[in-house]
Amino acid sequence: MYYEAAEGLARESLEKLQTERLKRTIATCLRSPFYSGRLGALGLTPDDFNSPADIRKLPFTTKDDLRANYPYGLLCQPMDHYVRLHASSGTTGTPTAIFYTQNDLDSWAGLVARCMYAVGLRKGDVFQNMSGYGLFTGGLGIHYGAERLGLLTVPAGAGNSKRQLKLLRDFHVSGVHIIPSYALHFASFLKEEGVDPRSLNWRIALIGAEPHTEEARQRIQDLLGLKAFNSYGMTEMNGPGVAFECEKQAGMHVWEDAYIAEIINPETGEPAAEGEMGELVMTTLCRDGMPILRYRTRDLTRFIPGACACGRTHRRIDRITGRADDMLIIKGCNIYPMQIEQALMSMPEVAQNYLIELFKEGEMDQLRVKVEIKDEFFVEDMRALTGLQKKIAARLRDEILVTPRVELVQHDSIPKGEGKAVRVVDLRAKQ
Amino acid sequence: MYYEAAEGLARESLEKLQTERLKRTIATCLRSPFYSGRLGALGLTPDDFNSPADIRKLPFTTKDDLRANYPYGLLCQPMDHYVRLHASSGTTGTPTAIFYTQNDLDSWAGLVARCMYAVGLRKGDVFQNMSGYGLFTGGLGIHYGAERLGLLTVPAGAGNSKRQLKLLRDFHVSGVHIIPSYALHFASFLKEEGVDPRSLNWRIALIGAEPHTEEARQRIQDLLGLKAFNSYGMTEMNGPGVAFECEKQAGMHVWEDAYIAEIINPETGEPAAEGEMGELVMTTLCRDGMPILRYRTRDLTRFIPGACACGRTHRRIDRITGRADDMLIIKGCNIYPMQIEQALMSMPEVAQNYLIELFKEGEMDQLRVKVEIKDEFFVEDMRALTGLQKKIAARLRDEILVTPRVELVQHDSIPKGEGKAVRVVDLRAKQ
Ligand SMILES: [Zn+2]
Ligand SMILES: [Zn+2]
Repeated sequence: MYYEAAEGLARESLEKLQTERLKRTIATCLRSPFYSGRLGALGLTPDDFNSPADIRKLPFTTKDDLRANYPYGLLCQPMDHYVRLHASSGTTGTPTAIFYTQNDLDSWAGLVARCMYAVGLRKGDVFQNMSGYGLFTGGLGIHYGAERLGLLTVPAGAGNSKRQLKLLRDFHVSGVHIIPSYALHFASFLKEEGVDPRSLNWRIALIGAEPHTEEARQRIQDLLGLKAFNSYGMTEMNGPGVAFECEKQAGMHVWEDAYIAEIINPETGEPAAEGEMGELVMTTLCRDGMPILRYRTRDLTRFIPGACACGRTHRRIDRITGRADDMLIIKGCNIYPMQIEQALMSMPEVAQNYLIELFKEGEMDQLRVKVEIKDEFFVEDMRALTGLQKKIAARLRDEILVTPRVELVQHDSIPKGEGKAVRVVDLRAKQ
Repeated sequence: MYYEAAEGLARESLEKLQTERLKRTIATCLRSPFYSGRLGALGLTPDDFNSPADIRKLPFTTKDDLRANYPYGLLCQPMDHYVRLHASSGTTGTPTAIFYTQNDLDSWAGLVARCMYAVGLRKGDVFQNMSGYGLFTGGLGIHYGAERLGLLTVPAGAGNSKRQLKLLRDFHVSGVHIIPSYALHFASFLKEEGVDPRSLNWRIALIGAEPHTEEARQRIQDLLGLKAFNSYGMTEMNGPGVAFECEKQAGMHVWEDAYIAEIINPETGEPAAEGEMGELVMTTLCRDGMPILRYRTRDLTRFIPGACACGRTHRRIDRITGRADDMLIIKGCNIYPMQIEQALMSMPEVAQNYLIELFKEGEMDQLRVKVEIKDEFFVEDMRALTGLQKKIAARLRDEILVTPRVELVQHDSIPKGEGKAVRVVDLRAKQ
């Protein structure tokens, strides 16, 4: 019934396993400059951890900790033990990077394979990965998991709908990985091409990387004629494969033999009551290269009370309903308004004010940036303005990996409110 | 001294190994619809192959054979044994696809790791893969080899020079994989940014995917301040890792324990004399999913006579000096003029004639397509013409994965010569 016996472990056995792995993880952490300092100051050793709940003895680890200790501060092994890194996008500000040993890659691939098995994919299925590769963990993460499970994996990469369709047809693809906004876009494409999605062999889509509503999932299922499964992950915790829906589509099982998940009140840091919304905090239990303790994901969700009908004992989290901070996710890329601000502010032509607008074009999320230009550059020469517009768009693309629409506006033309400037306007709900 | 003992095998032992593996490969081939028919008709069995030279008893396999038997005709294993496929680009015409079992991926990664070791990369090196991923075998092929060798692999992907530079610096990257035209482009970028390439930690570049001259290699080495090593491969033979330069930079060792290489006269099919130019013909010896016998690569080269100073016994081929047919390679993508023709001819606005021009812009190879438009569409409305231009460019990009410049011209304005139309003009040498 299960891909691994671990998925059906009784709660007591699971917690025993978590405790063992937590002890081992603490011992590993003591080898990194960052954690040895932090744990040393508190006098904490593996002996202090005798149940998963003892994790609360530890302070949180934040994105800022990762930035401050970039790039090597959290590494626990000699440098030549690492075979992969993934880094956050952006060329200004301090990025973050996650380093993986071969063991880490193996265990990550195993977790992703487990997720795919849970939604019904099996050896013999043909699986098309319609997500970008490269530094984005969604590409290689899902790819390695698919091969591990023994799926015939088609590394299609992102975009090029015509070609995606040809591959789907030629190889009788039965499962795909696709980001939700592209799934909706692809549905429109099929309609334009006069292709009945139910004429394709696909039956399963993994959709993740962008938070989306239950309504969006239902639409994707209806429009594409398949079942769509929600996926949760983030680079800090490997990438995809952290939590995944099973065939019951009733919340995402967090793989508790590989992670300790907590939901906390983001203001107080105290545990949220069972079933209550809060910020997800995650600890790795199977990483030897760069374990992370009590990571503040900033993602808001809740534990779903009760047991899942599938029989898996690992707890489920609800879909992510928001971020404790203001990160934007466009086309699967994490974008911080601060990145846009820093890039704009590095350009001499740009005045102080700007406005980021999120809107929908067809089914795709799009980004528009209105930029105030200094008077001396706001000339009547259309060619010069078009050139500047392109230059700004290219500069932003380099930074955030997505090409925004750029609209040049006159100095002081963007309305200023009182107090903190409104930098991001989300027009998507109103459209 | 060597990554694997196999690289220093005495000729006799190497040929014995080749013979064993050839017998096994023939036995495997008899399980595929295509080869069982072809070998059966000739009454050939593994017993007929008692030396590598016996391979000449076999007929050649051509790209057309792969097309005619697309997608499954050359597969030797049950479908659920395959975990990967790579397919050629394009949505019109019949593509080709290569299927890999887990064993095939393992042996491929081992060959690529061996190449990287041969140029001086070692565990502890940090390796940035600056090539696109997805269906292009250069991305995942090099990536898996780098991880196999234990390099800290940075899956940067293609493009975004600013970001590439940040990664190179932040992680003290010592080796890169980069296509030659992008290497030259990146050199100009560094100059513009005022970055001394010798301030970077890199010392080794793997350059392949595009044929290039010795002069281009020297220029890349000078401009980037590193040693650049030539790489040879093609999807039909796995991808990269078929033949590779060693540290002596004196031709590319073909891994003869994994392939039998022949150089033939492309007109007669007879073996070329030792050291004489001809068409490279390749046979896989370590593939169990989709072995290919005597594949006509269409690539022109020669065996380099004599032994290599490095001590490796596997024969060397010279850099590829041309193609027996007319494939174009732009930005690492294989492009057939026929693909462009088919795409253009599928558009109602396009008249009969067109012209493909290759030119250089800075250091990058570029593609321009002049397209004759039917009179009824050649209107004075600039917006309509711009729209049509974009539509054609997008259509071609979908087909060939590279966005060409498109120039619309009036019907009958492209000069027609006598006889066979000149469809491709290469302006690069004259620039
Ligand atoms: Zn379940
Ligand atoms: Zn050599």
